[in-house]
Amino acid sequence: MKTPFVTDLTGDQSITAFFLVHAKEIRNTKEGKPYLRMELGDRTGTLEARMWTKFELPAHDIVRDDFVKVEGRVELYRDKLQLSILQLRKAKPDEIDLADFLAHTKEDVEKMYAELLAYAKSIQNPWLQKLVNGILTDENISSHYKKAPAAKVMHHAYLGGLLEHVVGLCGLAKIVAAHYPELNLDLLLTVAMLHDVGKLDELCYTRAIGYTVDGQLLGHIVMELETVIHAIDKIPGFPPELKTVVQHLLISHHGQYEFGSPKLPMIREALVFHYLDDLDSKMAAVRAALASDSGDEDWSAYNGALQRKFLRLEHFLKDANSDAEKAKQGA
Amino acid sequence: MKTPFVTDLTGDQSITAFFLVHAKEIRNTKEGKPYLRMELGDRTGTLEARMWTKFELPAHDIVRDDFVKVEGRVELYRDKLQLSILQLRKAKPDEIDLADFLAHTKEDVEKMYAELLAYAKSIQNPWLQKLVNGILTDENISSHYKKAPAAKVMHHAYLGGLLEHVVGLCGLAKIVAAHYPELNLDLLLTVAMLHDVGKLDELCYTRAIGYTVDGQLLGHIVMELETVIHAIDKIPGFPPELKTVVQHLLISHHGQYEFGSPKLPMIREALVFHYLDDLDSKMAAVRAALASDSGDEDWSAYNGALQRKFLRLEHFLKDANSDAEKAKQGA
Amino acid sequence: MKTPFVTDLTGDQSITAFFLVHAKEIRNTKEGKPYLRMELGDRTGTLEARMWTKFELPAHDIVRDDFVKVEGRVELYRDKLQLSILQLRKAKPDEIDLADFLAHTKEDVEKMYAELLAYAKSIQNPWLQKLVNGILTDENISSHYKKAPAAKVMHHAYLGGLLEHVVGLCGLAKIVAAHYPELNLDLLLTVAMLHDVGKLDELCYTRAIGYTVDGQLLGHIVMELETVIHAIDKIPGFPPELKTVVQHLLISHHGQYEFGSPKLPMIREALVFHYLDDLDSKMAAVRAALASDSGDEDWSAYNGALQRKFLRLEHFLKDANSDAEKAKQGA
Amino acid sequence: MKTPFVTDLTGDQSITAFFLVHAKEIRNTKEGKPYLRMELGDRTGTLEARMWTKFELPAHDIVRDDFVKVEGRVELYRDKLQLSILQLRKAKPDEIDLADFLAHTKEDVEKMYAELLAYAKSIQNPWLQKLVNGILTDENISSHYKKAPAAKVMHHAYLGGLLEHVVGLCGLAKIVAAHYPELNLDLLLTVAMLHDVGKLDELCYTRAIGYTVDGQLLGHIVMELETVIHAIDKIPGFPPELKTVVQHLLISHHGQYEFGSPKLPMIREALVFHYLDDLDSKMAAVRAALASDSGDEDWSAYNGALQRKFLRLEHFLKDANSDAEKAKQGA
Amino acid sequence: MKTPFVTDLTGDQSITAFFLVHAKEIRNTKEGKPYLRMELGDRTGTLEARMWTKFELPAHDIVRDDFVKVEGRVELYRDKLQLSILQLRKAKPDEIDLADFLAHTKEDVEKMYAELLAYAKSIQNPWLQKLVNGILTDENISSHYKKAPAAKVMHHAYLGGLLEHVVGLCGLAKIVAAHYPELNLDLLLTVAMLHDVGKLDELCYTRAIGYTVDGQLLGHIVMELETVIHAIDKIPGFPPELKTVVQHLLISHHGQYEFGSPKLPMIREALVFHYLDDLDSKMAAVRAALASDSGDEDWSAYNGALQRKFLRLEHFLKDANSDAEKAKQGA
Amino acid sequence: MKTPFVTDLTGDQSITAFFLVHAKEIRNTKEGKPYLRMELGDRTGTLEARMWTKFELPAHDIVRDDFVKVEGRVELYRDKLQLSILQLRKAKPDEIDLADFLAHTKEDVEKMYAELLAYAKSIQNPWLQKLVNGILTDENISSHYKKAPAAKVMHHAYLGGLLEHVVGLCGLAKIVAAHYPELNLDLLLTVAMLHDVGKLDELCYTRAIGYTVDGQLLGHIVMELETVIHAIDKIPGFPPELKTVVQHLLISHHGQYEFGSPKLPMIREALVFHYLDDLDSKMAAVRAALASDSGDEDWSAYNGALQRKFLRLEHFLKDANSDAEKAKQGA
Repeated sequence: MKTPFVTDLTGDQSITAFFLVHAKEIRNTKEGKPYLRMELGDRTGTLEARMWTKFELPAHDIVRDDFVKVEGRVELYRDKLQLSILQLRKAKPDEIDLADFLAHTKEDVEKMYAELLAYAKSIQNPWLQKLVNGILTDENISSHYKKAPAAKVMHHAYLGGLLEHVVGLCGLAKIVAAHYPELNLDLLLTVAMLHDVGKLDELCYTRAIGYTVDGQLLGHIVMELETVIHAIDKIPGFPPELKTVVQHLLISHHGQYEFGSPKLPMIREALVFHYLDDLDSKMAAVRAALASDSGDEDWSAYNGALQRKFLRLEHFLKDANSDAEKAKQGA
Repeated sequence: MKTPFVTDLTGDQSITAFFLVHAKEIRNTKEGKPYLRMELGDRTGTLEARMWTKFELPAHDIVRDDFVKVEGRVELYRDKLQLSILQLRKAKPDEIDLADFLAHTKEDVEKMYAELLAYAKSIQNPWLQKLVNGILTDENISSHYKKAPAAKVMHHAYLGGLLEHVVGLCGLAKIVAAHYPELNLDLLLTVAMLHDVGKLDELCYTRAIGYTVDGQLLGHIVMELETVIHAIDKIPGFPPELKTVVQHLLISHHGQYEFGSPKLPMIREALVFHYLDDLDSKMAAVRAALASDSGDEDWSAYNGALQRKFLRLEHFLKDANSDAEKAKQGA
Repeated sequence: MKTPFVTDLTGDQSITAFFLVHAKEIRNTKEGKPYLRMELGDRTGTLEARMWTKFELPAHDIVRDDFVKVEGRVELYRDKLQLSILQLRKAKPDEIDLADFLAHTKEDVEKMYAELLAYAKSIQNPWLQKLVNGILTDENISSHYKKAPAAKVMHHAYLGGLLEHVVGLCGLAKIVAAHYPELNLDLLLTVAMLHDVGKLDELCYTRAIGYTVDGQLLGHIVMELETVIHAIDKIPGFPPELKTVVQHLLISHHGQYEFGSPKLPMIREALVFHYLDDLDSKMAAVRAALASDSGDEDWSAYNGALQRKFLRLEHFLKDANSDAEKAKQGA
Repeated sequence: MKTPFVTDLTGDQSITAFFLVHAKEIRNTKEGKPYLRMELGDRTGTLEARMWTKFELPAHDIVRDDFVKVEGRVELYRDKLQLSILQLRKAKPDEIDLADFLAHTKEDVEKMYAELLAYAKSIQNPWLQKLVNGILTDENISSHYKKAPAAKVMHHAYLGGLLEHVVGLCGLAKIVAAHYPELNLDLLLTVAMLHDVGKLDELCYTRAIGYTVDGQLLGHIVMELETVIHAIDKIPGFPPELKTVVQHLLISHHGQYEFGSPKLPMIREALVFHYLDDLDSKMAAVRAALASDSGDEDWSAYNGALQRKFLRLEHFLKDANSDAEKAKQGA
Repeated sequence: MKTPFVTDLTGDQSITAFFLVHAKEIRNTKEGKPYLRMELGDRTGTLEARMWTKFELPAHDIVRDDFVKVEGRVELYRDKLQLSILQLRKAKPDEIDLADFLAHTKEDVEKMYAELLAYAKSIQNPWLQKLVNGILTDENISSHYKKAPAAKVMHHAYLGGLLEHVVGLCGLAKIVAAHYPELNLDLLLTVAMLHDVGKLDELCYTRAIGYTVDGQLLGHIVMELETVIHAIDKIPGFPPELKTVVQHLLISHHGQYEFGSPKLPMIREALVFHYLDDLDSKMAAVRAALASDSGDEDWSAYNGALQRKFLRLEHFLKDANSDAEKAKQGA
Repeated sequence: MKTPFVTDLTGDQSITAFFLVHAKEIRNTKEGKPYLRMELGDRTGTLEARMWTKFELPAHDIVRDDFVKVEGRVELYRDKLQLSILQLRKAKPDEIDLADFLAHTKEDVEKMYAELLAYAKSIQNPWLQKLVNGILTDENISSHYKKAPAAKVMHHAYLGGLLEHVVGLCGLAKIVAAHYPELNLDLLLTVAMLHDVGKLDELCYTRAIGYTVDGQLLGHIVMELETVIHAIDKIPGFPPELKTVVQHLLISHHGQYEFGSPKLPMIREALVFHYLDDLDSKMAAVRAALASDSGDEDWSAYNGALQRKFLRLEHFLKDANSDAEKAKQGA
């Protein structure tokens, strides 16, 4: 693990550390003297850095998203920490542990992906099986699928988070389809596995989690539509109505126009999947809110997206629960 | 089964039949002659009726919500059917089959209620168990619980519909709590069983499904709050924090202010229950929409509340499905 | 021109006429006797029809969207016109003039399409030119492009309306791009010509204007996305960024989420095109509202979609204008 | 009056002062050395404080909401004031003047409460009189009623503010009922006196004004519902319809779903009371906005909740008014 | 009083009666024969009328808004009543009682106007006094002010209704200003008397209540702005700031943008007046809803504008009230 | 050009410079010693300034909106720059270049105004011509028209910006009226030239761009209404219907109630003008967003008012464009 992290810095320190380059540019002082300005970061935050002399050579081939090793001094300037760099070089690949720069799921990624493939195999409808299987076993997709986060901030916002979310959804789909016999499990599993495939390219997450330009201009729904259309094109005889249904499931999964779905769910499975996806995302958001130290003993911090805070139930009920324990034992 | 039903009437008919009285009044013709005007109905619809002579005696003790036997003639008047009554009397109890006047669940009510009590027993927390059990075994409540519909129009709008909805929710709660280990199943079951208890008195459903005056002025959330507060008052030592939690679960279950919840769900179980309740209601609404003959072969009729229509998937995919069958057999 | 049209019917008439079959089914009377029920129509409206006897043979091979010749009697029944059919047969192709069943643009379609191709040729960017040209000269597309209406009700709701709308937009794009030099005319022309290509299949308009099932489940934005992606796939070397830009222009052209655009316009040309498209649609809607006889001398009828009525300016200002004439002559 | 207040602090000062403890915890420095961190405050603001040595003993029994006496030095650290504590002890009750920590109404509380009781006595309906009187003379309630603020921020946000608001509403109710003879003054007075009783426990205000956990999970409408139900339960023979009416008046007084009323006002008095309550709250909010020094000579500061600022009319019209004076004297 | 009124008609009747002409045109039958078509009405409704022969002479000089005397026969045609006219002539002025064609306030108009003038005199500020007095004593305005309704449908929708509404508001303003000493009564009275002056021309109400073209294009706020500006122009020395304040009070009195106020109330008196105006309008709307026979014994009919129905409190509480009576007597 | 500008200041500097006085007051230190506090600014920003001694004389006659010359020292205090003034005096008019204090259009103002007058002359309708010409040649108006910005922040927010916007709109109106022959160009030009005349007094822009009190209480729509009414009053014989139409065009030009238009556009030209005005404003807003350095190489900064950021198309397509260049040359 790298040391120090950005959040460890306090000012008045000399440090030697590895950082990710978020931005790099050459600027001029008022006197017209050029200097190097960079924004550096790791998974705990970012830091402004400047190098005033002899930066030309070491900075020459450094670009955004490179890892660098720096030596310098951290000072408080206008109430913000700033690093004055004395030594600078690109980091070597074996000096870097990506986990220091991006948070990661605690689950075993390979095991989860195997689970996903098993769900894909369980699909009865031969066309849907071929479709899902073809996509999930495409090396280019699977390698990204094992890394992608599910979102930038809201929920499962860490490497492997998307896979965790999708495997969870497949499990939910299975039990809910068992509860409501009229539901078509094949369709639910298909949309669960494909509904966020566009996020593999909507988000960039090799270094920090952000949006690609394509992601911002098109969004994952439109992006995965192309992936799925191409995959279907390659399956001879794929029934056109089934293709329409799959497309509808994908484009309607946000449930409402204002969340970027160009169509409301008009198929029962589309409606149900929207609920499950929303529920699983909110559960993850609440889990993250309650896991964070912010807020106080009874309440999580206020969550702007959900417009509320959440009760720490265990703490609030601790007396009630011990009463209940006693009552049970007394009974 | 009664014959004819209102929907069977076509005009130019002489009939003898039983109806429920929806409204009754004495009016005067322009010439000042009094006549009897009634609105009569059964579970298929309503019908305007008039009796021009000798109605004083037979009409004397008939009030709204009585059942009557009438003999008369159905005519088309200003494009609406109208019944001219020749003979009229109150029906005897044994002449009436309530099922002719209100639709009914197809499930076995007693079996469902037994299931409900079993769910209540499965609650581990002794205070919640006492609370739920006390309410469900209160004769006055259980007798209504076995009859009440879940809504006037939207979903489960038939006798026993509420029970069907709640038993379904308990099942959903159980599997979803197994899926998300952080969830407290006791709380989910408690709110599932109590969240619509106010509907026992919000709706009236001895004859037709409607709202009581109390139901309109207060709503089922406020009404069940009183039931639950009184039940808790009777349990010595019920922890006050747990009481607060139960109340919050009840008042937040509509999920949003505009649907009449004075608080947003701020407890994880409150959020989850809102999703399950909403999902089960929508599933029932879609089921009803697809079961109805209206719409066409590909589409249900337009559902104003959900602002969309629903695809009849089986029909739309019939070619695709037979292709799939062949593909599987060929494989 | 066919005679009579549906709007000519008044009841108590014997007629012989051609109609389009909107719906057809065999029903049973209460006595269990089967009869034929059809919904028939032309471009002025629809009419309920029944045939009580000897319909088996003539009705045998008639399906929805066939044209039929009928002989029968029109009566007023429950305040609606109803046709009792005496004779029925399928119409022969040469007996039918499609223009009797669907309204049509007054412009010359071939001339407009030539204009469109000329606009396509004027595109400077070689990739965009190839893309647009390839689509517009695809026989399958051009044949539909010459027929499609622009909408079911709102604007340009007649055969050839889409083409009229698009040619108008190309003209607008050209003059507006000349007004704002920073605008890229190539992109504006490209999106103008492709933005409603999905409507060729979203709407069905061989008989009456309606939505296809695909159209309802996917919408024209998603549908044309596939057309454009496939067309780009066939052009080797098409720059990926340009593809992204074209896709963004298409998906953002409704301007807001609630109108079914999954992304807001984030490119200048996307924003401008949204305005032009909206302006041209509204101009056509107002033109139609003012052209209709409904409303009164000062006002058009109330337009529900635009939530207002429109002033008949010429009428309202007729005194003012004659004053102005005099004032000018006097000056 | 205490000295200095938080807003008097400027940095580089040695102080001895009393504060309220908003938060207290033991933290560790990076080197693992424990230190005491507290958030201290008075009615003008809050301040971060640290004690680095020998804090174990004095800090031992201090908890949130205690008053403390501190001696220390105020410094500017990272642009925020921070207090380094040298001496610390709990304050003695007689050292503290609560008014230094919470703002207070300028009216005489006992006199206002007597006015309230007089209004209660003036209620003609015997059931309502008993209900209101019973609640207002309950010692536990009256002692809180004399202290509670009406809101945390919006209006009457000071000790005694609720009482001031309610007495004002009773006066308004009386004159408005005289203006509209169809209004039932008894109902208006009843809801005026009970509509915010839930705030006695929704807000906590012994030290700073905030929300209790119960207040956040239930809200004052639900909380006072229980108080009122219990009070009615104790009055034998209270007519059930009147109980429904009282409950409706309480739950509908916010006027709209989005403000937390589960029902819209459907009784004339409920509608009127909503207007009066809203008017009196807004008047108080404007009064506070104009009384504050923020903003400039013509305008109050921008009020986020009301989404506007308010004109200082006196200042804006000062020339006009002196003109008017002259005009009148001249006349 | 005229006889019969439109609502008295039932079909199959020969009548002789007076009506107001709402529309008149000459149409052609399919056979090309001209006939006269008119829409006739009184204060209870409207009726379609046709005259098939010899209408040229009597219809010659009849225009919309004339009163006519007709003799003819009323029949039910396509489920609507229709009058076949046999004799037709213009009515003589002395044959017509306007009250048969438009509903009227029950108050004494001259007495109310005198009250209004007294309020105007009570204004202390000399400029405002001159302004209001000048407008109210303008013959052209006062004659309309005594007739105008306050709205087309919503509230005080009868002749003299505007005056009734304004006098009520002046009374309210006076008592509320006494309650809140910081309020400027002069401003409240001024805006009360002028805020709907634009309605004198926004609505037309010589025959039926409707909107003028100007009223629809401009609205009463913009229309009265011109009246007030012109009146101020004529008062030498009127302070410009006071003019701004008066204009602001007028344009902000609808309280919100979506109700057509281009500015939110930003002056205390503007905010208060908005509340009073809204309250008085709603009171009148509820009064009208409860006075109408529609709905049932417990509830008024559903009011679409207010999105609710209203409880008939007297009926609902009749048992409770008699209990209360007994309880009081027993006490 | 003045030196230094506020944005050039860094702390620890001695400066001599000219500034605009935004605020000025005398305050007391805790010790009761008076000092001068001012807020100073230029077109790049504002700065806090204090003068501790001997300020009485020089500060005596300085008021807000004066220009001053100061000598002093800039320090960083609590992380904000602060100027300690040593010497202070009012600036002389010839020392000040207004362009240093307010940004300015790059177009030639006199040339633009001549263009505007030419457009006015081109109006065919004699009444409208007189109206527009009368207003534009009013010295008091034209002198302001040549200076006013079009908005405080959103678009054309610089001196001369309003004129630039209006001339652009006249050009747009002309080409769009040529495209849609049904449009009345006279009306479009009239509203283009008058629609923001109220901004001449709604905004103040002699020193910094802000709102006048009148502007905030009335808004430019109401303010220009008075200007236009007075101008029409002076034209004998101006047709009243045409006056209504002009007023409607002005008050509806914001297009929606929530943007402060008390009426929706109900005349074709009103609808079209709303689109053109909105389009031109948005184009200017996007132009400003893209011209600013903020954001990154692919994206402008986030625009809160438009709720999005904008793509820097040139940069994003630079590879695609060079490909296109090659492809064209290769072709």
